[in-house]
Amino acid sequence: MALHLSSLFLRTLREDPADAEVPSHRLLVRAGYIRRVSPGVYTWLPLGLRVLRNVEKIVREEMDAIGAQELLFPALLPKEPFEATGRWTEYGDNIFRLQDRKGADHLLGPTHEEMFTLTVKDLYSSYKDLPLSIYQIQTKYRDEARPRAGVLRGREFVMKDSYSFDIDEAGLDKSYQLHREAYIRIFDRLGFHYVIVEAMAGAMGGSKSEEFLATAEVGEDTYVHCTSCGYAANVEAVRVPAPDPVGWEGTAAAHAEDTPDTPTIETLVAHLNERFPREDRSWAAGDTLKNVVVMLVHPDGTREPLAIGVPGDREVDEKRLGAQVEPAEVEAFTEADFAANPALVKGYIGPGALGLEGSSGIRYLLDPRVGEGTRWVTGANVAGQHVIDLVAGRDFTADGTIEAAEVRPGDPCPNCDHTLSAARGIEMGHVFQLGTKYAEALDLQVLDQSGKLVTVVMGSYGVGVSRAVACVVEGNHDESGIIWPRELAPADVHVVVAGKDDALFVKAEEIARELEVQGLTVIVDDRKGVSPGVKFKDSELIGVPTILVIGRGLAEGKVEIKDRRTGERREVAVDDAVAALTAEVTAEVERS
Amino acid sequence: MALHLSSLFLRTLREDPADAEVPSHRLLVRAGYIRRVSPGVYTWLPLGLRVLRNVEKIVREEMDAIGAQELLFPALLPKEPFEATGRWTEYGDNIFRLQDRKGADHLLGPTHEEMFTLTVKDLYSSYKDLPLSIYQIQTKYRDEARPRAGVLRGREFVMKDSYSFDIDEAGLDKSYQLHREAYIRIFDRLGFHYVIVEAMAGAMGGSKSEEFLATAEVGEDTYVHCTSCGYAANVEAVRVPAPDPVGWEGTAAAHAEDTPDTPTIETLVAHLNERFPREDRSWAAGDTLKNVVVMLVHPDGTREPLAIGVPGDREVDEKRLGAQVEPAEVEAFTEADFAANPALVKGYIGPGALGLEGSSGIRYLLDPRVGEGTRWVTGANVAGQHVIDLVAGRDFTADGTIEAAEVRPGDPCPNCDHTLSAARGIEMGHVFQLGTKYAEALDLQVLDQSGKLVTVVMGSYGVGVSRAVACVVEGNHDESGIIWPRELAPADVHVVVAGKDDALFVKAEEIARELEVQGLTVIVDDRKGVSPGVKFKDSELIGVPTILVIGRGLAEGKVEIKDRRTGERREVAVDDAVAALTAEVTAEVERS
Repeated sequence: MALHLSSLFLRTLREDPADAEVPSHRLLVRAGYIRRVSPGVYTWLPLGLRVLRNVEKIVREEMDAIGAQELLFPALLPKEPFEATGRWTEYGDNIFRLQDRKGADHLLGPTHEEMFTLTVKDLYSSYKDLPLSIYQIQTKYRDEARPRAGVLRGREFVMKDSYSFDIDEAGLDKSYQLHREAYIRIFDRLGFHYVIVEAMAGAMGGSKSEEFLATAEVGEDTYVHCTSCGYAANVEAVRVPAPDPVGWEGTAAAHAEDTPDTPTIETLVAHLNERFPREDRSWAAGDTLKNVVVMLVHPDGTREPLAIGVPGDREVDEKRLGAQVEPAEVEAFTEADFAANPALVKGYIGPGALGLEGSSGIRYLLDPRVGEGTRWVTGANVAGQHVIDLVAGRDFTADGTIEAAEVRPGDPCPNCDHTLSAARGIEMGHVFQLGTKYAEALDLQVLDQSGKLVTVVMGSYGVGVSRAVACVVEGNHDESGIIWPRELAPADVHVVVAGKDDALFVKAEEIARELEVQGLTVIVDDRKGVSPGVKFKDSELIGVPTILVIGRGLAEGKVEIKDRRTGERREVAVDDAVAALTAEVTAEVERS
Repeated sequence: MALHLSSLFLRTLREDPADAEVPSHRLLVRAGYIRRVSPGVYTWLPLGLRVLRNVEKIVREEMDAIGAQELLFPALLPKEPFEATGRWTEYGDNIFRLQDRKGADHLLGPTHEEMFTLTVKDLYSSYKDLPLSIYQIQTKYRDEARPRAGVLRGREFVMKDSYSFDIDEAGLDKSYQLHREAYIRIFDRLGFHYVIVEAMAGAMGGSKSEEFLATAEVGEDTYVHCTSCGYAANVEAVRVPAPDPVGWEGTAAAHAEDTPDTPTIETLVAHLNERFPREDRSWAAGDTLKNVVVMLVHPDGTREPLAIGVPGDREVDEKRLGAQVEPAEVEAFTEADFAANPALVKGYIGPGALGLEGSSGIRYLLDPRVGEGTRWVTGANVAGQHVIDLVAGRDFTADGTIEAAEVRPGDPCPNCDHTLSAARGIEMGHVFQLGTKYAEALDLQVLDQSGKLVTVVMGSYGVGVSRAVACVVEGNHDESGIIWPRELAPADVHVVVAGKDDALFVKAEEIARELEVQGLTVIVDDRKGVSPGVKFKDSELIGVPTILVIGRGLAEGKVEIKDRRTGERREVAVDDAVAALTAEVTAEVERS
């Protein structure tokens, strides 16, 4: 049955909602697709629910096509499995917790690794049962610190999450590849531009992880990419190539020098150029080694200072650092912390105080650029003194390397000899080789061919379903409103009755019925007392890809077909309208 | 694509789960439809999800057919609207409450009256916008004191809830009738027996309310019905006809008598027959007026004693009383309460101490049977004394009547001159004229034709969607397993490969493909190393209505079609199998 705007539960708004920062949020609210209930919690009005269901349908079809099986877990989950995996603690404030009337602890599931793992453990016991891919399209909850941008980052949202279960790594690779290909088909059908970027594989490391980012100005994720070789990675995942080791024969011995009042890189460089000028080139920030100390807070509450050495021309990037030390949280190193660690002289910290060999015993990790044989100016652990000609590998070593320095456009591509560019995106999908982390924590084992118990190897795969609705709008709108891709549109054709004559209304109903017989979905703007101008505006705001205007021309047997995306209009004979529209929609669906 | 049991995420169980009390729970777990996560919280495995979606589809089609519009509210709801309607308090322990990271209070929606009302208020402003019916099929939460019977009474469950919005009572009547008719179609299609019973309209009274109860031994709701006139009501809603007033001319004056040691009806009746024998007939419990005192706890925490007078041969029914005093809760009247109310002499309480005219000032409500002119023996408010020949209306009055006495099979039908029978049922649907309760609390008004603001009149309508899955099984199973009605079955045909010969497997796939071309859904039991006996057992447990056995007969070109419900088997030529099955399924669907 066609939707009629005279009765549809819809009110379009002329004004942007006050809290809307991004186009998709503005337009989805103004066009009557969603309505805010509380920060990050939205109602899907009839048109919005249609689009949401269309996204779900695409995701479901592509998941089914790779043999994944759909099931449905509850959102209200008991604490115990999340304690077994440590996530009850790790999630901190980011999950909603609650107690039932008997005082038992529960959470609202942010993702369902534990439940999938336990259910497979419950049902399966043999290698013969594998491989298995199961998924759900389900409502999830996260107590976001900053819910924003409508349904782009919500506290209640719909996700497709799937998990693969394999007997070994080779099986996981296959399942991962199947999901990756399915995701490519899903995002192609959803109709927005995206990039696949390398992502952090988590603290365990080793396994593969990629994100599907919709390219968007309003995105919260920064990624870098190389226009030459196609390499792309989110900033957390960028690996800085370590320079080849350099010999230090002939390099002067390290020598401490008075550098009074140089607690910052800027003051230090100025001082070096004034007091210790070099012949070949001036001192620059990149010649100095900056040692930054932070406080790690581990999930069990223990606090551990960590020192990071980076070239002085780079900052430590919070996101990159956070991803490296996960599940620990990073806090600033306070004056009190300095007081408790007297070996650290603020502004003049050097390797001599750090790491296994240092006086403070504080763990010390270096940026990969600080490779063997590289030469630095750095703190002497005495106020007002720095060491010059300190050579890595000769004069100091660290406890390891860390990828925590900021990534900048223009940095060398780790994959070829070009440089990286930066861009922003919205995380729309994630494929991730979990390995045995959850299977081990929850003891998911099966018998292999030789009758031996082996731990199952898992993959985890997510698509933001409600987020996709916003994401599609980010990539498909103009100043007048939304422009839905055909497969997502709440209807195929939006019929505007532009006039007061009864004959227009009668004809609109007749055409709507005929279109429906052809399998098309139709919105009819049959409102009385609403001007054609307002109706046109609403049709552009709502964004159905094909608009049929039935107006004055009908007297001469003409109606107008308008393409919402291109703005193209063409008159057709009213008797040809159904055939023309059906052909247009069908052709578009087949192309997509 | 056909489901293949060789890879389907399914394990059937031979043993009943330990915690399963009712057939639907046992069978849904054993046949691999659902899996318990915590009390009243279940996972829908692939077959179960298919059935759940089939129920949703039926509900959706019938709601759409009456012009109701689907939308989707969140489950995570802010406290404020529920405070405005008083439900934040009224729900007590029955809702899940939680706080977000900023300390804001939320609940998990048990029903969505507030959200629907506020959203209509947000979008609509004129009588021209009405009538409106909107609905959602959504996951709901109740912190049940005793979750039981699998998905029959869960803490997380799927419901269809709809609300109608009308400008006046006449509009509400129409919307109510439309929903009622849609519900009849829904429950007819779901394929279980049900009755429509009158239900309590809530504390406000006056408006209409009916429940759709699936008749089932395991049901938690008791209802009464009249086999003669068709009257049916849940016990809370039964109205006891008040007797016509009787004159009291010639009736002896009331007289207090010593009745030592008669604190119970039984001892009193024995005493009366011994010391005050009547000529025409013996004293019986029904001649006495029993005055029961309870303590009401109002939502705001205030405590109010309430006295209820019922004929001595009836108990006060907790459920009926609870429904009458809602939203107050009923607690027992303790010894301490008696001590605080010295006018009440335990075991000898009479009207003289109760009601507006009594010495205690405690509110006093009478069973309708205690009509004007009826004559009673009751307490004299003195230990060891009762009053005889006390006439209602002459010697005492009360503050009103209350329907709190138990209803018994054999009681007169309030509708005709027959008697009532009792039965048990499961509440599957509820249609309810809310009136203006929520619209008033949340200030939902629209302009009427004369430009005056009027309060919108609402109706509320619910269907238990996940509960329906269990309910259907309660009504459709035998000792071997489930017997799905056609429209709900996870597949149309269950193909059993009964043998090891490759040709059987090949033929099964061929037939499955052809059935799918005909639009049928198919399960193929293609497991290797599983005996035909086990496969037959599983097919009966799973309960697909039509089973196709491909076995030894194939060598002679024969296969067997089995009807799960009747057990009927017939051999057909393998080449006719697809046509025969298609005809069977199609005929059944058309009949339904």
